[in-house]
Formats: sequence, C-alpha cells, structure tokens
Amino acid sequence: MGSFYGENIKVSIFGQSHSNAIGVVIDGLPSGIPINENFIKDFLKRRSPAFNPLGTKRKETDSFEILSGVYDGHLCGAPFCAVIKNTDTKPQDYKELFNTPRPSHADFTARMKYKGFEDKTGGGHFSGRLTAPLCIAGAVCMEILALSHIYIGAHIERIGDIWDSRFDPVSVSKEDFDKAQDGELCVINKAAGKEMKRLINSVREDGNSVGGAIECAVIGLPVGVGEPMFYGLENKISAAVFAVPAVKGIEFGSGFDSIGMLGSEHNDSFIIKDGKIKIAANNHGGILGGLSSGMPIIFRTAIKPTPSIAIQQNTVDMEKMENAEISVKGRHDPCIAIRAVPCIEAAAAIAVCDAFLRYKKIN
Amino acid sequence: MGSFYGENIKVSIFGQSHSNAIGVVIDGLPSGIPINENFIKDFLKRRSPAFNPLGTKRKETDSFEILSGVYDGHLCGAPFCAVIKNTDTKPQDYKELFNTPRPSHADFTARMKYKGFEDKTGGGHFSGRLTAPLCIAGAVCMEILALSHIYIGAHIERIGDIWDSRFDPVSVSKEDFDKAQDGELCVINKAAGKEMKRLINSVREDGNSVGGAIECAVIGLPVGVGEPMFYGLENKISAAVFAVPAVKGIEFGSGFDSIGMLGSEHNDSFIIKDGKIKIAANNHGGILGGLSSGMPIIFRTAIKPTPSIAIQQNTVDMEKMENAEISVKGRHDPCIAIRAVPCIEAAAAIAVCDAFLRYKKIN
Amino acid sequence: MGSFYGENIKVSIFGQSHSNAIGVVIDGLPSGIPINENFIKDFLKRRSPAFNPLGTKRKETDSFEILSGVYDGHLCGAPFCAVIKNTDTKPQDYKELFNTPRPSHADFTARMKYKGFEDKTGGGHFSGRLTAPLCIAGAVCMEILALSHIYIGAHIERIGDIWDSRFDPVSVSKEDFDKAQDGELCVINKAAGKEMKRLINSVREDGNSVGGAIECAVIGLPVGVGEPMFYGLENKISAAVFAVPAVKGIEFGSGFDSIGMLGSEHNDSFIIKDGKIKIAANNHGGILGGLSSGMPIIFRTAIKPTPSIAIQQNTVDMEKMENAEISVKGRHDPCIAIRAVPCIEAAAAIAVCDAFLRYKKIN
Amino acid sequence: MGSFYGENIKVSIFGQSHSNAIGVVIDGLPSGIPINENFIKDFLKRRSPAFNPLGTKRKETDSFEILSGVYDGHLCGAPFCAVIKNTDTKPQDYKELFNTPRPSHADFTARMKYKGFEDKTGGGHFSGRLTAPLCIAGAVCMEILALSHIYIGAHIERIGDIWDSRFDPVSVSKEDFDKAQDGELCVINKAAGKEMKRLINSVREDGNSVGGAIECAVIGLPVGVGEPMFYGLENKISAAVFAVPAVKGIEFGSGFDSIGMLGSEHNDSFIIKDGKIKIAANNHGGILGGLSSGMPIIFRTAIKPTPSIAIQQNTVDMEKMENAEISVKGRHDPCIAIRAVPCIEAAAAIAVCDAFLRYKKIN
Repeated sequence: MGSFYGENIKVSIFGQSHSNAIGVVIDGLPSGIPINENFIKDFLKRRSPAFNPLGTKRKETDSFEILSGVYDGHLCGAPFCAVIKNTDTKPQDYKELFNTPRPSHADFTARMKYKGFEDKTGGGHFSGRLTAPLCIAGAVCMEILALSHIYIGAHIERIGDIWDSRFDPVSVSKEDFDKAQDGELCVINKAAGKEMKRLINSVREDGNSVGGAIECAVIGLPVGVGEPMFYGLENKISAAVFAVPAVKGIEFGSGFDSIGMLGSEHNDSFIIKDGKIKIAANNHGGILGGLSSGMPIIFRTAIKPTPSIAIQQNTVDMEKMENAEISVKGRHDPCIAIRAVPCIEAAAAIAVCDAFLRYKKIN
Repeated sequence: MGSFYGENIKVSIFGQSHSNAIGVVIDGLPSGIPINENFIKDFLKRRSPAFNPLGTKRKETDSFEILSGVYDGHLCGAPFCAVIKNTDTKPQDYKELFNTPRPSHADFTARMKYKGFEDKTGGGHFSGRLTAPLCIAGAVCMEILALSHIYIGAHIERIGDIWDSRFDPVSVSKEDFDKAQDGELCVINKAAGKEMKRLINSVREDGNSVGGAIECAVIGLPVGVGEPMFYGLENKISAAVFAVPAVKGIEFGSGFDSIGMLGSEHNDSFIIKDGKIKIAANNHGGILGGLSSGMPIIFRTAIKPTPSIAIQQNTVDMEKMENAEISVKGRHDPCIAIRAVPCIEAAAAIAVCDAFLRYKKIN
Repeated sequence: MGSFYGENIKVSIFGQSHSNAIGVVIDGLPSGIPINENFIKDFLKRRSPAFNPLGTKRKETDSFEILSGVYDGHLCGAPFCAVIKNTDTKPQDYKELFNTPRPSHADFTARMKYKGFEDKTGGGHFSGRLTAPLCIAGAVCMEILALSHIYIGAHIERIGDIWDSRFDPVSVSKEDFDKAQDGELCVINKAAGKEMKRLINSVREDGNSVGGAIECAVIGLPVGVGEPMFYGLENKISAAVFAVPAVKGIEFGSGFDSIGMLGSEHNDSFIIKDGKIKIAANNHGGILGGLSSGMPIIFRTAIKPTPSIAIQQNTVDMEKMENAEISVKGRHDPCIAIRAVPCIEAAAAIAVCDAFLRYKKIN
Repeated sequence: MGSFYGENIKVSIFGQSHSNAIGVVIDGLPSGIPINENFIKDFLKRRSPAFNPLGTKRKETDSFEILSGVYDGHLCGAPFCAVIKNTDTKPQDYKELFNTPRPSHADFTARMKYKGFEDKTGGGHFSGRLTAPLCIAGAVCMEILALSHIYIGAHIERIGDIWDSRFDPVSVSKEDFDKAQDGELCVINKAAGKEMKRLINSVREDGNSVGGAIECAVIGLPVGVGEPMFYGLENKISAAVFAVPAVKGIEFGSGFDSIGMLGSEHNDSFIIKDGKIKIAANNHGGILGGLSSGMPIIFRTAIKPTPSIAIQQNTVDMEKMENAEISVKGRHDPCIAIRAVPCIEAAAAIAVCDAFLRYKKIN
C-alpha cells in the first residue's frame, strides 16, 4: 500500500513493467484548468528512452490515453485517469532472473514481502517504467502551477566526478530551465555535458553504470505555502522524490554543506528591496519552518548507479539456496540519472501542487 | 495542517513554545504493550537542555503526564495522550522580536501564512520545544519495536569539521548504540567528542552557532517492511525526520557518495551464509525498493547551525517596512545537532513503527 | 476530491458516464489471493442493465479488462486496476438537458461547484454508471473475504409498499444469499417479487419511478473487527454505502425501530452455548461500540425513486434564468433499487474488507 | 485506530471514562478565527449531566482547559487542544462488571479485540463521556461556520412513541434552533416535551430506558460544498454521527419515507424566485450528488435505548465461562437521546466544517 500520494489531491499510480498497462489516477484536481496533451507528451518524451541515445534500448513510445477527468479540453472536476499500454515487453529477458535476485534491485525484498506472488518480470511494480505515469501526473500538476506562474526545472548536477554548474539559488529563472533542457543532456554547462556523455558511453562499453546528481528548483511560489512539522515542503517533496527509483539522498538549500557552516554564515538576512521584504541569500533553500519563503526552492538528489549491469556479479539462487552469479542482460541505462531529471521535476510538481492547492484554490 | 503523521498509527502533536502545554496523541497503537514511564523519561532527558551543559539555559524539566491510553501499565487500545506543562516561559524575551523576523527562523513565513494571528512567542508551534512530544511518541514506538528486537540508535557524526567515526553499516549493534549514548555527547569516538565540545564552547563564546550531522541506524527489522513508491521506508523516514527543525538533508546508505560510484562498486551482492540469504555489503542502506532488506537501515541527516545567534544580523521591521538589526538574545543552543540526536531517533522510530505495524501486528 | 475510500486499502474510482472508460484502482491488497475473473464478471452482471429486463435500455456489456495487480492468477501486491470501456454512449440524449438541470439529480449542484466545466453528458462522474467499477472493487474484496469464510448478501426488502421477508438476523446464511439471488429480482419471497415486478412495470408505463429498500447482511466476521468512534463498522459501512447514488438512509440492526423500544426489549443478552459466548438476539445488528460482535451484521438502506422520469417536471433554464419544463428521455430504470442490490453488497464488501485487513492480514 | 476524523481538518479524540483526562486535538484549523470560550462552555453544558435533571447523576462539571492553538483570543494556526480532567470517577461502581459484559455495550467486543488489556472502567474509551471532547470540537467548528452564517441545530424528534413537530425542511431558521433549545428538553413542541419528560421519569422508575430520535438541520451552506461518491456530505455526516454512541440509523431528507414514494412525488423542482435559482421542496435533504444544494440539510438519527439498565439481564461470566445475571448499577441516563442532541450537532458541525474548509478557505 504505497503507490498513492497527497492530501489535497490524491495521486494513485498503478501498473507493472509488463502488465497490460500502467497509469495514474488523480482525484481532487480543480475544474476548469486547460489541459494541453502536447505538453504532457513533450514532458514524457524527456524521460522516454526512445528519444535518448544514452538510454536503454527498450523502445516504449509511451503514448498515453486520457480515460477520464478531462471534458472539452479542461479538467472537469472528476478524477483524471491516463494509461499507457505496455507494448515492447520482452518478459523472456527476465525469466532466468526469477530465482537469482539482481543485486541492489527490489527483486529480493519483493520476493520476501509478497511471498513469491509478486510480478517478477522486469521488476514488476518496482520497475523504473512506473515513472512514466509519475511524469504524466507531474505534467498535469505543472499545467496547474503554470497558471499561477509557478515553474519547476531540473538539471544534471553531476555524473561520476564531472560537475555541471549550479542554478543561481537567488535568481534562477524559467529561462534557465529552458536552457538546461535544450540538448541531449539536461545541463547548464554544455561542455560538461559532452564530458558526461563520454563517461556514460565508456561505462556502457564496460557493461557498467555510474551514479549522478540532479538539482531541481521551484520558482514563483508565494510565501507561506506548506505546513509545519510533518507536512512541511521538505517533508512533502522528499516523500515524493524517494518514489523515483535509485534516489538515495536529498538536500535543501545548502544542505549537507550546512554542517560545516557557522550560524553567521548560514543565516539568510531579510532586507527591504523595492518596498518589499526580500531575503538576501538562499542557504535555506526557499523553505523556513516547512513553509515557502518566497525564494526559489532548491534541492539536490543523489541517484545511485543503475543496478542493472552486464558485469558478472555475485548473487544467490533462492530456490536452491546456493551462491550463484548473474549478468543482467536486457536493455538498461548506463546512467539512470539522465532520465530521472523529468521524474524528479514531476515528483516535485506533485508535492508542490498538493501543498499549493491547500494554500490557494485556483477555482 | 501538518502536525500529524502516520497511516497505521496516527500521531498528532500540539502546543506552542509558550502555550499552557505541549503534547501528543497517538491513535492506533496495539493493546497489551507494557509502557515503562522511566524509559520515556530517560529518553526525554537526552533531549532536555536541563541535562546538557552544552545546550540552552532554558531549564524545562519536561516532566510529562500520561492522560490516556495506558491502563494497568499497558497500552489499552485507546489513543495515548501525554502532555508537558510549559513552566519556564519567559515571553518577554521574545516580545521585541515580534516585528523583526529572526533570520533563518520561521517567524517571517509564519507571519505571512497566518496573517499575524500566529503565536509569536518563542517560535510558537515552530519552536524546537515541540520535539519534546515528538520524543515521547518516539519512545512509545521504541517500546513497541523493542518487543520485536528492533532497535534504533544515533550519534553525532560531525560538528563543523570534526568527524566522529561511523557505525559499521553491516554489523552495527545495540551495544554500539549504548556506547555512543554514554557520555555528554552521543559520539562513538570520545576523543572526537572532546574536540567537538571545545568547538561548541568556542562558537558559543562568539555568540555564534555551528552545524552538525547525525547518523542513525535501525537494526532488527525483518525483510519486507515498507511499501513501494511513496510509502517506501526512505519516503516515510524522511517525511518524519524533516519534522525536526534544522534538518536540511538526508541520505540513505552510501547516499551522496553514490554519485561518484560505478554500479560494480555500489551494488551489494547476495550470499548464502549459515544457510540463509545475506547481503555482503550495505551501500543500499538497508532499503531496496522502499522495503527493508534485513540489513541495518543507515541514514544521515544534515543539521544546520542554530539560527538563533547573539551576533548582530540584518533583518527588517515588518511593521515599519524598513531595514533593521537583530541580536537574538534569550537562551539558545550553540549547536542544535547535539540535542537533535534523540529527536532523529524518535522520528525514525515513529516512521519505522508505523510501517512495522502494517507488516506485523503485535497483538 | 471524493472518489476514493479506505485506510488499509485505497480504492480510487474514476470515469464519467460518457468518458473513454471508467475504472478503479485498489492499492494495498494482500498478495497471493486467487482472482477469479468469472466471479467478478458474474457479479457485474447482477448490476448490468443488459441482463435485467426491468432496467434501463442502455445496453453496456460492462466487459472489463484488468490492467494491473494480477500476476499468474493471483493478486501480486501491486495496485489492482480494471477498466471498462464506454461503448453504448449516446451523448445527444443529454445535450438538451445541459441548461435545464434534472430535478433531484446532481446536474445543478455540479454546475455550481465546477462552474460549468463539469462533464455534462449523462450525469458525468455522478452517473450511476460509476457503480460498475464500485462493483468490480467489491467483487475483489469479496474474493478476499471469502477466503476467511466471510460472505455478504443483500435482497430487496421493499419496493413502494410491497414487502419482501427479512433475513433472520441471527441465523442468516450463505444459502439465504444464494436463494435471494436466484431469479430476476433479488428477493427472499418470490411471490412478493412478482408483485414488485408488476408495480415496476406499471410505474414504467406511467413514465414514473418508485423507491425501494435493500437489506444487506455480512456473515462470518470474527469478534472485534472495526475501530472505536469514527472508524466503527457503522461509520465505515455508511461512508461507503452513501457512495451509491439514490441512497437516502441507512440503519443497523433494529435501527429506526429502536426509537420505540425499551432498553429491556432492545438489549441483546449474552449466553454460553456449546462452550462459547453467544448473543441471544441481534437488535444491535452485529456491531457494538463500532466493533463486530460475531453476530451477522445487518443493515438496511432506503433508495429513493429514480430521479429520471419521463413525466413533465418543473425546472429552470440556467442560461436564460427562467422557468422551464423537462421530461427526461433516454433510457432509465423505473426502480433503481433493483440494480442497487449488488452495489450495496459491493460497498459493504469494500468497507468490511478494509476493516478486516487491519484486523487480520491474510498474507 | 478510529478516534480521528477529517481530511481538511484532523480531529483526534482521546481519553477513557476514568483516565486522567479526556480531550481533543484539531489540526488544520484556519488562523484568525475568534474563539469564544463561553460559547464552548455553554455548548458543553447542553450535553452535561450536571445541568440535566433527566440525566445520569454523575456530576462532571466538564470544565475544560485550552492547552494550545489559541493565541490572543484567536485560532493561531497551530493545532488546537483542549482537555477535561476526570474528577467524579467512581471506578468501584464498575469493578464487578469486569467479567460480565453489559448487554448491548462494547464491553464484550472490546475485551475480544484488546485481549483483556482494554480499560474496563466505565466503558473505557467507548464511554459516552467521550462525547464531551466531541462537543468541544463541534463548538469550535460552529464558531468557524458561524462567521459564514452557517448554523446547525437539532431537537428531539421522538422519545418512545411521543413525537415532537419537525423542522420545516424549506424554511427552518436559526430562530427555530434557538426556540428548540429553550427549555429542559430540546423540542419544538413544548407540550410534547412535557409528555416525554413524564415517559422518561416513568422508565427511570422502572430501572429501564427508552430510545429516541433526533432531527438535525444545517442552514446557510452555499451550493456545491461536498464531494462526489465517498466524500459526499451524506457520507461525511454519517461517518461522524455514528461516532456518537447509541446511534443506530440515519436518514437524509425524506429518507426511509422515499421508499414508498414515486419519482414524481419525490423529485424537487427547480424554480426561479427573486431572480435566483431555488428548489421548491426538500425531499432531497439539501444534498444532491453528495453536494449541498443550497437548501437546509436535514437528517434524522435513531438513538437506541440506553443499554445500562437496573433491570436484571442475562449475561455471561467471561472468566468462568458460565451464564450470569447483571443489573447495571451506577448513574445512567434513562434516555440517552436527550443528551445526544448537542453531540449530533457537534458531529454534524465537524463534518460540515471539514467539507466547507475545502470549499472556501476562511483565511
């Protein structure tokens, strides 16, 4: 019981890697919001392997059908549902893996939890494929937020030891988002992107994989969105972001760097500017006491290396209860962080939209 | 609407820094669990300033009263409620701050959200004082988990640039927890603890503060606790941990270090040992696909420097809408990370107990 | 934000009368439960107009497709999703009604709530057609409950002034359910059923409709299922049952008759029988303090006459803001209570299954 | 896990009949609402036995203390908490009952659920005493609703076979509420009230009890409050109202009378009146499709006779597993319906406030 999210909207994601379809239901969306299917389509494309030469060779087109919730081009107040049929499924790629859990995948934990009844093909419900409906939900939330001039963007901050630039935490803008998205890899510094590409191709050739980091920003939120304690924006965003497979860490603002800072360095001063209260810096990452401060929300996530690698690894045969070896064949991303960029944006969009709809009903 | 937590248990925290009382209700606890008030008392002591020479001078004894939910020494199936009366309140310490929001505190965001009706004394509901009822809830959850031999422990991993040792991610034990808790500061390496103490006293003399990091482990969980996607253990733990003020980041297992790792380095092999399936290493931090793997759960949190500092800072006067200066007087911790140790344990206990009670009902 | 239900399972229903499809997602179901699609099919048939000569002429076959959550014939722990494509849609039947709300329908309230963006065809999301996915969810829950020998059955207790017999509240059995379901109308007394049929045909000829009552029983529940106060079985069952359109009342046990009773008459004595504690009578309807007592749960619901009638009625033109007349054409049930029988069973099954899964995890 | 309620506000009730205290936490209330403690006090008085000569002789003064959530006379955005100390407790009255469950009480089901660990004194958490914090929560919700001119009132519709008049379902007003509350019994027809009083005194002398019915109305709600399906106003109100002990049934509008009606009789026409859309009658009880229609919400509840009676009854000794007899001594209400009137109002207020706060944020 875990694939739903939200207090003010209720997002419910379903499907397995090789089930008939995957999809999402969102209940509680405001009526009257125009839904641009092309926007959703373009957003999905950013995560789709079909459009990314650096990704897996599994070529799902991810064409979705809206089953409900939209009437005459607008959200109609009824639950939104969209599905994607699974087409390019090759379950036989996975059959030999059924008794030999892939290291650092959910095969083993799922087997123990569901007692062998879990869908074993392609990771079942734990597959990265489930981020497609997550992205649909995120795109719908982005369409709602955009009406209030709230935007979300992310870029690859790092692959292995190659660093991209960071967003300016005070002045990051929608233009910065657009620039980062322009090109094969979502990076600010296109030269760094080229190096990253070389690294990825090199680890792919080795049958290996590599980790990455993603930086995400939310701009345009008014002051006071969010709630104290357990429903603060940090809580809500992290509860959504860890739904993206391979995320192993999240930090807001100066995050882990805060450990080494003094209060006098870390504290962000208030100032009057143009007759308004502003904050001079953004170590706090746009969130104070769980509530938005009016500054950009800045967070970074650590993405582990894709656990599916062709290199031989040690595992066990759960039937025979003996040691075994495994080489994960099939079609895998050498650096899952690349395709995770829109997924992180989507998770953030869902979290922020849920909080924002409590703050201010759009209709 | 944010001070509650949980699906299988419902934790509801109330109170303000200077309200009549602070407290917590927990609904959904199993009946029949023996409740040892002394255990709760001792746990609260670890967070209490009254017992920590390095902490604030506000001397709340934090003596609590259980109002309901316990009968004849056991949880009785009815909602548990405990309260702590606020006694050592000095609201006048805060009065002058009402219009000058303290940098990196929630004063400004709360003022904007609640439109001036918020309780302004001592941070109101945003005060670190609210971690006392969090710790009561955590202690009750620990008593439940202990019956199934599940234990939680944490230590200060770092203050400024002074590092403690880390838990062994594979073999960390209850004894390690006990050793870390033995002494003024929760550290494994007592020599490092002494250096930390010197650093803290030095920043205190400067009227400044310093950040820190806490490492926490959960041991004894069987395989398969947790849920996929949004209710994975990482999601649930982070949604609880960010309720502790000053937390700015969280990572599980190798966390942010995963970024620079190859799949072949990061993946944790399965092996047969003593006729059982084990995992050879713990880069995954005890969680795969949101589910416990049987390995210790290891996570680390970044704690920002206490925002209340005596050093003069720039702020604004929200009434006069002009720039102002502020020096936060009152009684503050120069390094809030120290007292956050049991709070992080408590947040983890609540999250893990909630997940565990779905996995296995104790009665 | 209303079309979801449940604490331990999460049921999310979507679709509009004339959207591409309608369906349901259920998260949190236990893995390993065998799913018999024919059982679901047969259950759906009982609500389907295609199989009921007394019902509407809209001939949806209600053939459903399971998109996810079932693997190798069993629930696999992933969210279950099933959809029904809408095929026999005739939106033009409704077009003229767009500005003239049908009396006692949701047209007017939905228009005001969703500001004209609501799906106006055939009642949109408020259509009785949405009880088809409700029935799918109910059937899945029944399959889970049946494994623990918990069964649910209902019959028409009354149409207009024609009464069926009642279930024996102490000894009602699965055989009684089967007998009631045998025949065109779900009644115990088949002679009464014939009279009801005559009455229904007569009101249909008049272009009118008539109300009805349904009695439902849940048998086989152990003692202690349910929770106190707001999550008692009465609360949970009524919160589910009022999702069935046209339900206007619900009573448990002796219900509204209790008003005229003395305590000495109403109280149900405990007795020892065959070495076990039993209850001698069932005025309490199988629920004490919100918890199941081990006796059959008995409840009755009042179903209003189908609001869609061919007879001319007064309404308003919401565009022109003037009085108008309306005769609801299209294909409607003269007595919606008939087809509501499986819907009430389904709602009860969902509510009871949700409570039961907290009481006792099946896997 | 049952004593909490709400989506937009979270009400959490705690306490047992003889625990240190009983109380309630409400999270999610809007800030800035003035809280008049005297209003709460007066409201509590209406349910208090201390002020009702027809009630139990247990004389709790029900004086409450607000622990949090109010600052400077207004809701401050932090969770509201109020407690009532238990003072006039006589646990020895109940001791002999521990093994002999009182017929039609929750003693038996609680014993089976909580395995003997339940608080056995005076019904523990299942005691009617828990309606005191329910009434506090209801009163706070009423203060919020009153700011938008939404009012709630109820009266005893029937005791045994003595009937009060009913509210006019179309024109019921705040004055009607005030008149009903004026006097010892909440009735419209004071002559009927006198007869009821005679009946109650007579059943008391017999050591018996009698059932009753309560009619409740909510006026002033705009059109469109509520949600479809499971969160319709009928669902929400009934989910709240069944938390009041002894409620065995609920009906909205013409309710169970609808069964015998034709569609042409039952349907409520729309009309233009004073340039506005109105509804000519109120068989629908102010709710269409789960949404408020702008007409008064009218519902009626059936209250069973107080199960505690002095008359000898059959029960069992659960220790000895043999038949036994019981006469419930102590201090009990011969007709619990009388004191249930404000409790039903409170439950309705909580349900309606929760729905209304989603519809329209007050601040």
